[in-house]
Amino acid sequence: MRRKFSDVSALSEREPGVFGAEAAPEWSIGGKPNGGYLLAMIGDAATRASDHPHILAASAHYLRSPDPGPVTVTAEVMRSGRTVSQVRGRLSAGEKTCVEALFTLGRLPEEESPYWADGLPRVSVPPIDECVPLVNAVPDKYRPAIMSQVDIRLDPETAGYTDRKPSGRGELRGWLSLPGDEPFTLPALLYAVDSFPPATLDIATTGWVPTLELTAYVRAVPAPGPLRVVHRAQLISGQLVDEDCYVWDSKDRLVAQSTQLAGIRLG
Amino acid sequence: MRRKFSDVSALSEREPGVFGAEAAPEWSIGGKPNGGYLLAMIGDAATRASDHPHILAASAHYLRSPDPGPVTVTAEVMRSGRTVSQVRGRLSAGEKTCVEALFTLGRLPEEESPYWADGLPRVSVPPIDECVPLVNAVPDKYRPAIMSQVDIRLDPETAGYTDRKPSGRGELRGWLSLPGDEPFTLPALLYAVDSFPPATLDIATTGWVPTLELTAYVRAVPAPGPLRVVHRAQLISGQLVDEDCYVWDSKDRLVAQSTQLAGIRLG
Repeated sequence: MRRKFSDVSALSEREPGVFGAEAAPEWSIGGKPNGGYLLAMIGDAATRASDHPHILAASAHYLRSPDPGPVTVTAEVMRSGRTVSQVRGRLSAGEKTCVEALFTLGRLPEEESPYWADGLPRVSVPPIDECVPLVNAVPDKYRPAIMSQVDIRLDPETAGYTDRKPSGRGELRGWLSLPGDEPFTLPALLYAVDSFPPATLDIATTGWVPTLELTAYVRAVPAPGPLRVVHRAQLISGQLVDEDCYVWDSKDRLVAQSTQLAGIRLG
Repeated sequence: MRRKFSDVSALSEREPGVFGAEAAPEWSIGGKPNGGYLLAMIGDAATRASDHPHILAASAHYLRSPDPGPVTVTAEVMRSGRTVSQVRGRLSAGEKTCVEALFTLGRLPEEESPYWADGLPRVSVPPIDECVPLVNAVPDKYRPAIMSQVDIRLDPETAGYTDRKPSGRGELRGWLSLPGDEPFTLPALLYAVDSFPPATLDIATTGWVPTLELTAYVRAVPAPGPLRVVHRAQLISGQLVDEDCYVWDSKDRLVAQSTQLAGIRLG
């Protein structure tokens, strides 16, 4: 059964800035809740605590993975200024901090063309119906639970790894939709930037690639519809890899971008 | 007079995890200490507090600029694990938090070739003696104090902005040395990724481009010698710009990379 993002990320306020939530077993990979999904819940709490409506920047350090089940999410305003505010956020399970995060919030412009966008990567993604549904490409027994929840379609050029033929480019491109085509909120974009499989699968097959740090910038409020995602690795060295991710909405605006550092059993 | 980085970033421990320091007026831009320089001091404190020797990831949110003068730097270990630890750091002036930062520390490998580096940008920088010393290119009255301290040489192809001829590419390339050619420590790399002028100067002249968030990953312990730096803008939208920065050492290894989100009076 597919569970909506607004359902699995719902917060219930216990006291100002302290929320109860449930990390859904369906939104996990090998029994560990997806890191972007956890950050989205903290981002929602940070937004509720702030005088500003929009997450501009979120930086998360991952201390340990919670088991699926009850978690506590807290948000504490450090400074509330005229144009931006800064909020400290945390997700914990029992007494243990699992994710510690910092946020800068502000106000994104309404519909507006970027002043300059020439520095963004130039990549094209084929139309969604020419892309490969990941849920079909990965056999049942290898498919993480979350892949049966969200709808990821891969550019066939970057889907080779599902057939043990990685291209070696370290890049996955495709489309992302939430269950029931629910529109992406700003906190949901924090999930979007961590939604794709490790880009390193397009280089070599490894076990778990646990995120140590993830930073995301939100650049625009997304229009409804699926998001176009480009996720790519830059450097694997000393059993660490950095991956960046770019996310465009249906109006072809960059709505979010991220970088993450993760552990990997290579190099 | 040039003041060494180890001098202007020196910490004196007041109690465990609490350090006194001095933000040097010489290391400022328009009277505001450089943001990477401040982060370097917090990174030093985080390293002293941690059981692990190397900063792997640092994420800073900038709340307000301290004036040059006395500051307090604190570091608090959140978790100390087998392979990594996480530390919360802060720089404050009086009662006010100026920079709040999170760190993940671990152990970088000794001399090692990367397992895979094909995702890094392919850019070349001319030899250092073919590059333009920034201190000569910018007239005295426009030159920030810090530019008389550190030695930045720009690839002539990207130095056009100093003569009011930006290329429009939004990219600055060149070399960085500390005063007295002091070797770069890992905390000093957190300065290096924020040492170049705004990459947006290669697009349009603006006033101050204040950093809201900066995330840096350290990828290797640098060899002695000047660092090669590539600093570039990706997207200017809604009066915000993201800039990334890549730093290589004299052995041509990527030693640090960063992304930052900054305010800008454009778009």
